[in-house]
Amino acid sequence: MQTSVLLENLMQALQCLPGVGPKSSQRMAFHLLQRDRRGGLNLANVLSQAMDEIGHCIDCNTFTESTQCHICASVKRQSNKTLCIVETPADIHAIEQTGQFSGRYFVLMGHLSPLDGIGPKELGLDKLAKRLIEEEITEVILATNPTIEGEVTANYIAQICLECDVTASRIAHGIPVGGDLEMVDSTTLSHSFVGRTKILNN
Amino acid sequence: MQTSVLLENLMQALQCLPGVGPKSSQRMAFHLLQRDRRGGLNLANVLSQAMDEIGHCIDCNTFTESTQCHICASVKRQSNKTLCIVETPADIHAIEQTGQFSGRYFVLMGHLSPLDGIGPKELGLDKLAKRLIEEEITEVILATNPTIEGEVTANYIAQICLECDVTASRIAHGIPVGGDLEMVDSTTLSHSFVGRTKILNN
Ligand SMILES: [Zn+2]
Ligand SMILES: [Zn+2]
Repeated sequence: MQTSVLLENLMQALQCLPGVGPKSSQRMAFHLLQRDRRGGLNLANVLSQAMDEIGHCIDCNTFTESTQCHICASVKRQSNKTLCIVETPADIHAIEQTGQFSGRYFVLMGHLSPLDGIGPKELGLDKLAKRLIEEEITEVILATNPTIEGEVTANYIAQICLECDVTASRIAHGIPVGGDLEMVDSTTLSHSFVGRTKILNN
Repeated sequence: MQTSVLLENLMQALQCLPGVGPKSSQRMAFHLLQRDRRGGLNLANVLSQAMDEIGHCIDCNTFTESTQCHICASVKRQSNKTLCIVETPADIHAIEQTGQFSGRYFVLMGHLSPLDGIGPKELGLDKLAKRLIEEEITEVILATNPTIEGEVTANYIAQICLECDVTASRIAHGIPVGGDLEMVDSTTLSHSFVGRTKILNN
């Protein structure tokens, strides 16, 4: 028997979060009620605002509550004529954390998948081609996922770049830094051989 | 560089949940924005309502949005004169899932801890004594945690029961069913020897 309908509803609602099942939703609900009602109320407010107000950047498609995201709106970023193509907004976060890239992005929100009805138009590739020309982009870095769909999508965009006379490059695939050679899958290992670079000898 | 202040706030706010750090809060935020805005909005609503409206049952102290929780309000449960004492509302959930108990509960919302200023009054033991007499309780099952504090609290309440002429019993401690003997800690194993029961011989 349950002691409270609202408590049961809360446990159920928490399971919309990825990785949260019945056991952890129960632990979360009791934790918030017993120890952090302020945190729970704050989460409710921010969550409701985020779900309502966060849309897509008019330039790069990433998530933002403004018309243009912070990166696209940055004058410093605009002066860099390199554009990095990624599949999802989460990829931007991962790349920004490396601090290696100071250009702008274009988020496909997916990859080419004809069987699901996702073609060039759905990924906004016409908008991308327009940007390449209008913003005088000099290089496009293709950072789609190292999957079959990601490779196909990267190749398709490389073709658009060729037509627009823009250099296209693909991020390197290989053995993760700090990784154990024998633990790496054979596709990655094969990529690391194909993409080998010369070590300079004296 | 972040693409959206609201998105950063959401990732931060999600970390009030136990077990959720920067990595998983990011995964949760992107999942809700990309795939489940309805689930996110529903969670926001239920969470806000739960934090505002859930209080404590006037009889047993467990969490409920009503004056009296469903269990205390059940006529069937009221006819059972056994009272089970637990430390937290989560313990009620665990016991209800066994289906072994059809009496009512009393939630201490903690255990005796003089150094933290938590004495008999803070645990509502005066209210408990009153219930024992007024509701003609015949047995009290002490289901506080098998910790030093839990044992001390159980013993203290057993004393109150004695004064009120009510039988007090303690739940059995021992080897978990399906558990591996050599994996069980020595305190539990010692409890399982002290609490051994006779096997009937022909
Ligand atoms: Zn943008
Ligand atoms: Zn109750």
